[in-house]
Amino acid sequence: MTMKTSKTVRKILSHYESDNPGTKANLARILGAGRLGGTGKLVILPVDQGFEHGPARSFAVNEPAYDPHYHFQLAIDAGLSAYAAPLGALEAGADTFAGQIPLILKVNSSNSWATSIDQGVTGTVDDALRIGASAIGFTIYPGADNIFEQLEEFRELASEAKSVGLATVLWSYPRGGKLSKDGELALDVGAYAAHIAALAGAHIIKVKLPSDHIEQKDAQKAYEGGDWSTQAKRVAHVIQSSFNGRRIVVFSGGATKGADAVYDDARAIRDGGGNGSIIGRNSFQRPREDALALLDRIVRIYLNKE
Amino acid sequence: MTMKTSKTVRKILSHYESDNPGTKANLARILGAGRLGGTGKLVILPVDQGFEHGPARSFAVNEPAYDPHYHFQLAIDAGLSAYAAPLGALEAGADTFAGQIPLILKVNSSNSWATSIDQGVTGTVDDALRIGASAIGFTIYPGADNIFEQLEEFRELASEAKSVGLATVLWSYPRGGKLSKDGELALDVGAYAAHIAALAGAHIIKVKLPSDHIEQKDAQKAYEGGDWSTQAKRVAHVIQSSFNGRRIVVFSGGATKGADAVYDDARAIRDGGGNGSIIGRNSFQRPREDALALLDRIVRIYLNKE
Amino acid sequence: MTMKTSKTVRKILSHYESDNPGTKANLARILGAGRLGGTGKLVILPVDQGFEHGPARSFAVNEPAYDPHYHFQLAIDAGLSAYAAPLGALEAGADTFAGQIPLILKVNSSNSWATSIDQGVTGTVDDALRIGASAIGFTIYPGADNIFEQLEEFRELASEAKSVGLATVLWSYPRGGKLSKDGELALDVGAYAAHIAALAGAHIIKVKLPSDHIEQKDAQKAYEGGDWSTQAKRVAHVIQSSFNGRRIVVFSGGATKGADAVYDDARAIRDGGGNGSIIGRNSFQRPREDALALLDRIVRIYLNKE
Amino acid sequence: MTMKTSKTVRKILSHYESDNPGTKANLARILGAGRLGGTGKLVILPVDQGFEHGPARSFAVNEPAYDPHYHFQLAIDAGLSAYAAPLGALEAGADTFAGQIPLILKVNSSNSWATSIDQGVTGTVDDALRIGASAIGFTIYPGADNIFEQLEEFRELASEAKSVGLATVLWSYPRGGKLSKDGELALDVGAYAAHIAALAGAHIIKVKLPSDHIEQKDAQKAYEGGDWSTQAKRVAHVIQSSFNGRRIVVFSGGATKGADAVYDDARAIRDGGGNGSIIGRNSFQRPREDALALLDRIVRIYLNKE
Amino acid sequence: MTMKTSKTVRKILSHYESDNPGTKANLARILGAGRLGGTGKLVILPVDQGFEHGPARSFAVNEPAYDPHYHFQLAIDAGLSAYAAPLGALEAGADTFAGQIPLILKVNSSNSWATSIDQGVTGTVDDALRIGASAIGFTIYPGADNIFEQLEEFRELASEAKSVGLATVLWSYPRGGKLSKDGELALDVGAYAAHIAALAGAHIIKVKLPSDHIEQKDAQKAYEGGDWSTQAKRVAHVIQSSFNGRRIVVFSGGATKGADAVYDDARAIRDGGGNGSIIGRNSFQRPREDALALLDRIVRIYLNKE
Repeated sequence: MTMKTSKTVRKILSHYESDNPGTKANLARILGAGRLGGTGKLVILPVDQGFEHGPARSFAVNEPAYDPHYHFQLAIDAGLSAYAAPLGALEAGADTFAGQIPLILKVNSSNSWATSIDQGVTGTVDDALRIGASAIGFTIYPGADNIFEQLEEFRELASEAKSVGLATVLWSYPRGGKLSKDGELALDVGAYAAHIAALAGAHIIKVKLPSDHIEQKDAQKAYEGGDWSTQAKRVAHVIQSSFNGRRIVVFSGGATKGADAVYDDARAIRDGGGNGSIIGRNSFQRPREDALALLDRIVRIYLNKE
Repeated sequence: MTMKTSKTVRKILSHYESDNPGTKANLARILGAGRLGGTGKLVILPVDQGFEHGPARSFAVNEPAYDPHYHFQLAIDAGLSAYAAPLGALEAGADTFAGQIPLILKVNSSNSWATSIDQGVTGTVDDALRIGASAIGFTIYPGADNIFEQLEEFRELASEAKSVGLATVLWSYPRGGKLSKDGELALDVGAYAAHIAALAGAHIIKVKLPSDHIEQKDAQKAYEGGDWSTQAKRVAHVIQSSFNGRRIVVFSGGATKGADAVYDDARAIRDGGGNGSIIGRNSFQRPREDALALLDRIVRIYLNKE
Repeated sequence: MTMKTSKTVRKILSHYESDNPGTKANLARILGAGRLGGTGKLVILPVDQGFEHGPARSFAVNEPAYDPHYHFQLAIDAGLSAYAAPLGALEAGADTFAGQIPLILKVNSSNSWATSIDQGVTGTVDDALRIGASAIGFTIYPGADNIFEQLEEFRELASEAKSVGLATVLWSYPRGGKLSKDGELALDVGAYAAHIAALAGAHIIKVKLPSDHIEQKDAQKAYEGGDWSTQAKRVAHVIQSSFNGRRIVVFSGGATKGADAVYDDARAIRDGGGNGSIIGRNSFQRPREDALALLDRIVRIYLNKE
Repeated sequence: MTMKTSKTVRKILSHYESDNPGTKANLARILGAGRLGGTGKLVILPVDQGFEHGPARSFAVNEPAYDPHYHFQLAIDAGLSAYAAPLGALEAGADTFAGQIPLILKVNSSNSWATSIDQGVTGTVDDALRIGASAIGFTIYPGADNIFEQLEEFRELASEAKSVGLATVLWSYPRGGKLSKDGELALDVGAYAAHIAALAGAHIIKVKLPSDHIEQKDAQKAYEGGDWSTQAKRVAHVIQSSFNGRRIVVFSGGATKGADAVYDDARAIRDGGGNGSIIGRNSFQRPREDALALLDRIVRIYLNKE
Repeated sequence: MTMKTSKTVRKILSHYESDNPGTKANLARILGAGRLGGTGKLVILPVDQGFEHGPARSFAVNEPAYDPHYHFQLAIDAGLSAYAAPLGALEAGADTFAGQIPLILKVNSSNSWATSIDQGVTGTVDDALRIGASAIGFTIYPGADNIFEQLEEFRELASEAKSVGLATVLWSYPRGGKLSKDGELALDVGAYAAHIAALAGAHIIKVKLPSDHIEQKDAQKAYEGGDWSTQAKRVAHVIQSSFNGRRIVVFSGGATKGADAVYDDARAIRDGGGNGSIIGRNSFQRPREDALALLDRIVRIYLNKE
């Protein structure tokens, strides 16, 4: 095994100008892990669906996925870059799989019955160190009534994480308030959400793939005359909005869908200059062999082999 | 007295991968205590009814139960695995019964007049160490408006408890918000509640026995075609939802009912792979001799002798 | 004065099983002070009316009572067990009367203009040590919207107090929320309030004398068939609800009333097994000589001489 | 398994008047463990010889003893009361044997090359909680130049231990300064060493079996006319010097010797009212089967069966 | 790149029973890095000679070695397991080489002018996290007058390191006090030094290759009849003394010497069951190409290819 970081990775790391070597080493671990190690691309397996939607909606379709070890093993066998999950799920396998794949501790979590657009903080930076995670993950809902409290929670956790050499991954999902349902996926909104994450100091930004809808009246003029017809162009705009490519941006796959749609997404992310995919339901809700095949093709797409 | 942990207990302990030996030793104490010691099954006596319903509703039917010593003695004489109660109740007997039975300090408590679906934190981790408890107990109400704050309180207390070698028991009782009254006991809801507790990092999960009702529309598809007709099958689904059996799950007995119904519950828990019962009102609201007889049969059921 | 603790006092102290000798010594000081020293009975002078009702409503009827020294001297001259007041009031006399009577620092306080059913924390455990108090006093309002926060404040203060060898006195006054005005004094409610105080870990519980009203529908069955016609029987039920006599319980006298009513109250407390009275307005709102005469008779009642 | 503490144990626990229930529960665990559980007698296996004398001098004679698991298993299989060792040795087996036998973390340690009569502090109270120990162990050398620093180190550690519910075991070994070599084992010196340990606040006192030599001129008068001819009588004097039997005292066996001498020691300890033996080299420097046979007879002696 | 830990590595990790997954992940990183990744063997490059002997004595013979980057690059290019150095040296390259090789922050350091056999603490656990180190390194001098203070410094640093998921490497170098110069390398002394490191709670133990001299009179009997004629047999005894193989042990190469002697050492370490070499002067005091060739052969020896 070689851990030599590639020129591409070193370029990416150089964008994190204020971070200590500890945080950079953890980013390097994520960028160096798995089959995409060294390419500057990454595919992350996130499994927080259990918190969000409950166990049966998440795992009944593929029963082995009820076992927390299943997801560690899937991410490792697929050669992914990192595995992200809430505290209990990581605690349940952190020893067995110690050192085998970078971990992202999701430190806040929602659930289906929540009466506010918010998440509870369910993990700490100390927990992340204790279980050997490389990063903490956090979700904000720009648009929600208490977005400021969410940003303040992230500020506290991110500041602590950076001081002990951990990286931060920020899920930035516009929702609530003045936003229409279509607006949540609008291009201007997605770019804005990514920019907020960058401004809040996140190392890795996770947003949804944007549609070509423009939600904000005030923003429409700025998008006039642009060609937003392809997903790749829209991805490129999100990347541009994330400090012009100075921040790692990964895109989520959303609900389970056909494999071809997943591959199209990955190609658009790649062609638009995105750093990769974060694929949860589309992997663990398929039988393991199908999931491995699907992840193999996604990895090959990012390797420019498909 | 032998404290040798059985193979079954060692298997259970091995699932707690991130815990220090102090926490595992306290789990081992609970799993090794009483007549079920070493079987991987447990019966816990919880007496927080005084806080929840007031003293008369709790104890008038069996007046000796007004005395805090009564419950320590009952749990010891019945050969139970642990005794759980709020701070004052444990302080009142912790010296007399020091070392005789594992204690669980219930660190939050509700009351009948509460105007929110919440509990107040009435004990600390320092209190637990000071009185010699093996674990802290905490209640969350998934569904309640402030579930996130409840999870955050648990996170703080659980993190501190784990660092000093204590175990955590999480009562996960869906209530409030979008949930219907039937929904509180629904199978999908109960499994979800157990899963939330597991993800929050609890060592021992306490939930109610679920009915065959499916509450969430979005979840119905996941349960279609399944056979949920027996309590044992429903228990098995809750266990599956608790990290596929990697977490200890005990079921509460609910309001006082006929002894046969209690035995049926225990058999269903046993047959479904649950770890045991937490029986409050059904024991201390019966005359002592009746309670001992009832607990004896429950223990025998878990010993596969009935 | 002899400080030898009587057999009765030693029995009472033995109920505080988890407390360190420092806390027990302070309880012993209160139980050993004044004319009731050694009997297990106590009469406490509380003067927090100034905070609650303002100075004129409290003291105009007996102008010397504007002077903080007046109350120290009254409690000492009457041979009472302890004097309880907010920080400033104790600071104003703590030097002159150092060592002459046990002090209880009331660490939270309300006022007439409060818009919530709550109190502000106006004293600390450090203050209590600094002024030589034997205990801290705290008020909770079971039924109030923020009862959980009140219990959490008490938890913090009580935990600290116990660690430095101080005792705690908990005023448990049901108010607000679902409770009717009559309900505040109902038997079931008063017993419940006392039980909450015991569960919260208080050493000395202060509640109001209950009426024979039963407030909670769910509780009525538990009280059916009982004879609650006399105050003594109702007191006995409150004592039973306070860990079956394992906690010291004192009863407050309420608004100023005729002396005979006050004596009747004391006899009922005594006959019902209560530990004593906490008498504020009925003493300091009378002329000093009248107050001393009234307190003398109350003490004599607890000495079984009347 | 039953954890009911016997009347004898409850009597012993009652002597620890200032300790919280947590510390008492840990003492109860030690007094309740193994074949002597409940008798008030105890046999402890201490393995700090590796630190004191190096590995070869300690284990070459019985090579399996190089493995830290060997000692856990020996203590468990022999039905002993506790196993005491330095941090690394307990860390190496604390998970495998979690909850199987009470552990004593020896928190200071010497070595053969030390140029002062002292030990280094090599473990903390946090370590003890983390690995699930019931007590910390500490050695002082009354007579040494820096005995005061040693006592001060113990004060800090013991104070912290008591506040979190751990017990303390104090090895009190007179050495250095004005003491002659014979004097280290003198009766007056041993009794004095035990008394110092009691005064320093230790829960369990470990001293060496004293000879009939009287070392201190000033003390000779006090011993004149006494009959110190038997080991049992000398043990009784040490017990008397340890708060007249209010503290648990165990005696160390010293260097490896014949089995009969070991049995004679145990009988003398028993007959003199001592609480038991702490037997290191005489157990682990024998082949396992021999050690088990020897420990079996010692246990039988304390059970009054030999 | 695959980070799958081998069966061998998982076996080694399982010996660290009390460590959290964070510490195990860092051990796994060291055991997984470089060309020996997964074999359970390791070669570490330590460069603390500048502190010990000054720059010219350390680097004049190979001037590029004055540049801190030189050593990072050497360790990476040679495919080593980790690079160990004092704070400043790591700070000078931690960003350039972030994530490319596990780092060990040497947190104490000596110098040629020291008048005591001791080292100063020149780095902290916070420093280690900040620069992304996987472990802290510390030197003790068993035999030195202040060995106890050294052990106490290690205890503090190690306890903190373990709590945040770092590993610890303990250089255990007997020196001073009663030890003769020959004695510093004696077999009994080296085995004892390794045992002390294990007992002190180190994860990785670094000692010198022992001679066949037996230094301690008291220990001679334990070594009588043993065959200590080969280096491999002496290594095997050190491994046995390090918890019978339950701790990772690496051996230092000492002063610069001929390459063949270095290879012989490596073969002896391998054949005796040691985990590897820590090679400083013998690598960086050779021209880079010679050093790479030498390290290549050492790695091949550990791979059983030579």
